Amino acid sequence: MKIDHIGIATRQLKEAIALWQDALGLEVDSTEVVGEQGVRIAMLPIGETHIELLEPLTPESPIGKFLDRRGPGIHHIAIRVDDIRMALEQLKEKGARLIDETPRIGAGDCLVAFIHPSSTNGVLLELVQQQ
Amino acid sequence: MKIDHIGIATRQLKEAIALWQDALGLEVDSTEVVGEQGVRIAMLPIGETHIELLEPLTPESPIGKFLDRRGPGIHHIAIRVDDIRMALEQLKEKGARLIDETPRIGAGDCLVAFIHPSSTNGVLLELVQQQ
Repeated sequence: MKIDHIGIATRQLKEAIALWQDALGLEVDSTEVVGEQGVRIAMLPIGETHIELLEPLTPESPIGKFLDRRGPGIHHIAIRVDDIRMALEQLKEKGARLIDETPRIGAGDCLVAFIHPSSTNGVLLELVQQQ
Repeated sequence: MKIDHIGIATRQLKEAIALWQDALGLEVDSTEVVGEQGVRIAMLPIGETHIELLEPLTPESPIGKFLDRRGPGIHHIAIRVDDIRMALEQLKEKGARLIDETPRIGAGDCLVAFIHPSSTNGVLLELVQQQ
């Protein structure tokens, strides 16, 4: 297991990218629109993981609502697993509250599933399996 | 550069540890009281980085106030750098607002310094240099 990425909610991707580039020297590896989640994202590698900057496509999207409620900041942590279905099953057995009972397609064509923050100290957790 | 740890504010370290152990199979590498920051911490390795669980020693500590304001959840991201003084100088030159102008001693006897969230998309950023 490793951290796949740390998701950060931003109002404007362009400004956010400039800031992480200028302040910390990170570079953008890829950008993508994930329509299903209502976001435009930019991935900036750092070590074995990434900073994922998220800009909402609409105010009604989950990231749009998060920005309204909390302002810009860390939104979620994504953990890379080898077998997402087995990981979800184990989490469910341990009593974790799953947002996604079955994986769906996320950024980079990965299989992804979210765990509810009530199960993980208020942390919104995403599982990611590369295909 | 790499992510040294992701700091997560919790009300009770013991419960939080049990949850991350049970739900995700992480193990505690070390625990420590960092008096200056008013916290008891537990480090749980994951890949090249760590989940750092933080429990406030008093309600008036920064983590105590964070819990009051926001509840449990992700508190900060720490980035490992080779030369923290040079990194702080570069950040200052780029206009970043530093919480610590000079490094202080943090967990694991590392040199640490915090950058204000207003400079980094609402993310409280910590720099860490091992000694």
